Amino acid sequence: MQDLLEKIIQENRKYTEKGNLATYIPELTKANKNDLAICVIDIENNVYKAGDYEKKFTIQSVSKPITLALALIDNGKENVFAKVGMEPSGDPFNSIMKLETVKPSIPYNPMINAGAIVITSMIKGKDNDEKLERMLNFFRSLSCNPTLNINEDVYNSEKRTGDRNRAIAYLLKSEGIIDGDVEEILDLYFKQCSIEVTVEDLARMGANLATYGFDMLHRQRIIPEDIARTVKTFMVTCGMYDASGEFAINVGIPSKSGVGGGIMSSVPKKMGIGVFGPALDKKGNSIAGIRVLKDISKQLSLSIF
Amino acid sequence: MQDLLEKIIQENRKYTEKGNLATYIPELTKANKNDLAICVIDIENNVYKAGDYEKKFTIQSVSKPITLALALIDNGKENVFAKVGMEPSGDPFNSIMKLETVKPSIPYNPMINAGAIVITSMIKGKDNDEKLERMLNFFRSLSCNPTLNINEDVYNSEKRTGDRNRAIAYLLKSEGIIDGDVEEILDLYFKQCSIEVTVEDLARMGANLATYGFDMLHRQRIIPEDIARTVKTFMVTCGMYDASGEFAINVGIPSKSGVGGGIMSSVPKKMGIGVFGPALDKKGNSIAGIRVLKDISKQLSLSIF
Amino acid sequence: MQDLLEKIIQENRKYTEKGNLATYIPELTKANKNDLAICVIDIENNVYKAGDYEKKFTIQSVSKPITLALALIDNGKENVFAKVGMEPSGDPFNSIMKLETVKPSIPYNPMINAGAIVITSMIKGKDNDEKLERMLNFFRSLSCNPTLNINEDVYNSEKRTGDRNRAIAYLLKSEGIIDGDVEEILDLYFKQCSIEVTVEDLARMGANLATYGFDMLHRQRIIPEDIARTVKTFMVTCGMYDASGEFAINVGIPSKSGVGGGIMSSVPKKMGIGVFGPALDKKGNSIAGIRVLKDISKQLSLSIF
Amino acid sequence: MQDLLEKIIQENRKYTEKGNLATYIPELTKANKNDLAICVIDIENNVYKAGDYEKKFTIQSVSKPITLALALIDNGKENVFAKVGMEPSGDPFNSIMKLETVKPSIPYNPMINAGAIVITSMIKGKDNDEKLERMLNFFRSLSCNPTLNINEDVYNSEKRTGDRNRAIAYLLKSEGIIDGDVEEILDLYFKQCSIEVTVEDLARMGANLATYGFDMLHRQRIIPEDIARTVKTFMVTCGMYDASGEFAINVGIPSKSGVGGGIMSSVPKKMGIGVFGPALDKKGNSIAGIRVLKDISKQLSLSIF
Repeated sequence: MQDLLEKIIQENRKYTEKGNLATYIPELTKANKNDLAICVIDIENNVYKAGDYEKKFTIQSVSKPITLALALIDNGKENVFAKVGMEPSGDPFNSIMKLETVKPSIPYNPMINAGAIVITSMIKGKDNDEKLERMLNFFRSLSCNPTLNINEDVYNSEKRTGDRNRAIAYLLKSEGIIDGDVEEILDLYFKQCSIEVTVEDLARMGANLATYGFDMLHRQRIIPEDIARTVKTFMVTCGMYDASGEFAINVGIPSKSGVGGGIMSSVPKKMGIGVFGPALDKKGNSIAGIRVLKDISKQLSLSIF
Repeated sequence: MQDLLEKIIQENRKYTEKGNLATYIPELTKANKNDLAICVIDIENNVYKAGDYEKKFTIQSVSKPITLALALIDNGKENVFAKVGMEPSGDPFNSIMKLETVKPSIPYNPMINAGAIVITSMIKGKDNDEKLERMLNFFRSLSCNPTLNINEDVYNSEKRTGDRNRAIAYLLKSEGIIDGDVEEILDLYFKQCSIEVTVEDLARMGANLATYGFDMLHRQRIIPEDIARTVKTFMVTCGMYDASGEFAINVGIPSKSGVGGGIMSSVPKKMGIGVFGPALDKKGNSIAGIRVLKDISKQLSLSIF
Repeated sequence: MQDLLEKIIQENRKYTEKGNLATYIPELTKANKNDLAICVIDIENNVYKAGDYEKKFTIQSVSKPITLALALIDNGKENVFAKVGMEPSGDPFNSIMKLETVKPSIPYNPMINAGAIVITSMIKGKDNDEKLERMLNFFRSLSCNPTLNINEDVYNSEKRTGDRNRAIAYLLKSEGIIDGDVEEILDLYFKQCSIEVTVEDLARMGANLATYGFDMLHRQRIIPEDIARTVKTFMVTCGMYDASGEFAINVGIPSKSGVGGGIMSSVPKKMGIGVFGPALDKKGNSIAGIRVLKDISKQLSLSIF
Repeated sequence: MQDLLEKIIQENRKYTEKGNLATYIPELTKANKNDLAICVIDIENNVYKAGDYEKKFTIQSVSKPITLALALIDNGKENVFAKVGMEPSGDPFNSIMKLETVKPSIPYNPMINAGAIVITSMIKGKDNDEKLERMLNFFRSLSCNPTLNINEDVYNSEKRTGDRNRAIAYLLKSEGIIDGDVEEILDLYFKQCSIEVTVEDLARMGANLATYGFDMLHRQRIIPEDIARTVKTFMVTCGMYDASGEFAINVGIPSKSGVGGGIMSSVPKKMGIGVFGPALDKKGNSIAGIRVLKDISKQLSLSIF
């Protein structure tokens, strides 16, 4: 496995040249566009790493399936899916138009920004501090990494430049889909997106989803089985933005990407995979990261289809 | 003329029953739905009134062509139309979707909310107080009414419930169409919409547009001729929300309506007309007010077509 | 007047270089892109011409307001506007999407292709031959030109390449907006668009609309006054495709353009104007023709606003 | 297994009352709305049936993944996906609007009508007869049923009332996505949709996809492994119209439904399932059929996620 990962990283690093760093959050442009890393953790807890695996990056949209899991635990399936749909939207992740054209105007799914903002608004807690605390603890528990924390520079950068997310949130507020103070909800959302991780953190989270929410390291359940399955399903149908369909065909592994360059993958009953490559393609996915996953899926026959 | 107006009001008052008060700004629901009033001021300064002409109401969207005139004076045609288009949109006034689907994402015209917010953002002044002062003075000058002022209750109501306008404004901000602080711009916009008027104020403004911006009362020019013509053109193509086309065919007078129930009409070289009837049809126009204008247009052959 | 027209043609011919011939109907690419012509006929029947006024071209979309008049005569206002709306759409002339997104799915107005096809389907006649005969006679009567006829080459070219119009027509059929055989309706529509005219024909039709449908040459009424007014109103709100709003502001004359390069204008109570210049701008309007009309409107103060 | 199937059919038959027969193809309204049937074929060729399993019905959209497989064999992945996308669209199956709003205007995926028509147009053959022959043989081979044939009444009904599909096809033609005669392509498409099957046929086809295209009955390969996997992936991301996301979460089995009431499901490495229940929900899926699959998935832990 170690040799395979080394080889795959080596063969795909050239594709980092063809992508671009995310520009819409200024802080993200400071990344090194040629970085590429992978970590695999199988369900016997073997850990394999290759490439720039020590690099830290912000989790961004990879956080969406995780907070979805927490919101489902906090509120139950019925309450959550009264406010967010379950269908792929066919539109870009930051699209606003279906909120106007399709009635009822709930977001299509929890993986687009509109849906993720609703999900964040449903995290329980008496105030934003407690909500953040609960959220961070959940991420720490799922990654088996108690040191996980927020990158303040990225958070401030997101907050300063998040006007499109503000537009989405105020529209959701005006439609009665979210309650409470919009700026507070967005503050929590921006913090969630700014959690700093490594590929090992992502691989561990993917592994814990691969076991349907049972933490193999500490031999304890973190997420109910049904919720873990729901989360993985969304990762297939909507996990790679509006390239999810193509990714399902070419790779076939439940995965979620973020504009920070990370991808968290979960092969049911087999392994979790974390990938990092901040050079993105036009749809916002790690351009070399996708190729890394395609190669490993082919080599190890990991497609679920 | 007096008899004609009395008769028209009398015959159309029954239609107020078929409409509804605007509900999206709570304060507006306090109006009396059966009110109906008209005022005509011809270019020889004769003033005729009928119905509930003493009633005050907030100007709402009728303010849009007036601030457009001020923004054109302040910035010039080229600068204004670099940020707002000149085309009818075919969508409801508070629609957000074309900002996403059509590129460049400038609002279609200054009569929809998105366009009007951009226009408000272009009013000159060193701070919001000065901008408001200049705006109020312009409205006072055009209505020949130095006592025109803001209805604080409506303003506070708009501000509290303006989340859809916030969504529009933040989207415009994220696209670089408006600069500066969104909440400040919206504050000015909500105040503009909350200016309190009577049908006589609207008729006087319409009369001053009918003379291409020359105030017949004080024998002085208020608006350059070209700008007055531009404003009247928008009143035809986009003045009655997404019922403008039908209104042009059935009435044929440059007019602008507001959800407060007011309509300001301007018959070139002939007269200004102010109408008030707070019961609205589904598109947000005064349901009886439109019939009043249809009758007067027919009786006096006022259509410009 | 003659001198003014000569000068305007001369000054604007250079703009023909900046446009392009319509390409989507192959036969139209055979035109001479530098042609530019104007004809003015005032309501005292004075005729003035300048430029390439002897050139023949197909009427294309300029036919839409004329068949609308015939359909209104044939069916009455109520029946016609049960199947076609009265609002500008904000979309390109061949757009199909609002038929799906807005319910009821009747076309927005009779000037876009979808609406014009519905209008054509409402022309009375026991079969297509009789319908065509009636339509041609109406065009001949309005242009005071009994020799008006179809350009067979253009007609065949339209028919061969009209798949987008077929798509629109079948969608209208499936929604129950048009009855009867789609190919027959389209055949009549393609013929209507292929009627061959000169600028004088267009000017005469414009003049007859300027007099509200009363033919000043033969001293007889051709179109009821109310219908002539309705037609001119559509020419303002939707006559120049999705540049109608800008044209209303800059020119202010009821006008209808076609991709053959023609524009028919009608100045109420004053004159009809025909313009021809086959080099088009991006929205499908004669690029130099619009400038010609802007100049003449300014010089003679013809704006209706 | 037999007992389980009997029980599931019995428990879910009541839900047939809550749905409606498809109305847009008149012939389909002749079905018995209370019918409900299931057939399971595992990869050891055991066959289990319950309910109205002897009933015949037309395959409708269940044919789409099968012709996709044939088109992929005929043309290769690259050529097919140059003309059809791989993404869920978020819109109803007969939607036309994304063909206009998203460029390039290729259909989003092969499971919506627009995409399926493109796929049908790519089936090889020197004329329509040969194409139909090849298509029928492929369906016969995959269902191990050499008697499979077309229901002529349904075919004629589809052809007579297929105007929306005509609209879609002519739009595809005008955009250059399909070549050749539109009516011939549609004729083949309507025939494909009118193939008559039983739940056993669907179960067998699902079983042959579950083995990645290897026919366990005759011990021979029918579909290349990679193509079988691609087909199953589309069944997950777009197989149940715009309810695919919810179905993936609640059931988690690659499935394709049709408005005839059939559903073909394929559990990788385990079994094929055919379900029939002509009472449909609002999105066009068998209302009781979905519940049958949900129950069997839960009872036998068949979700792939």
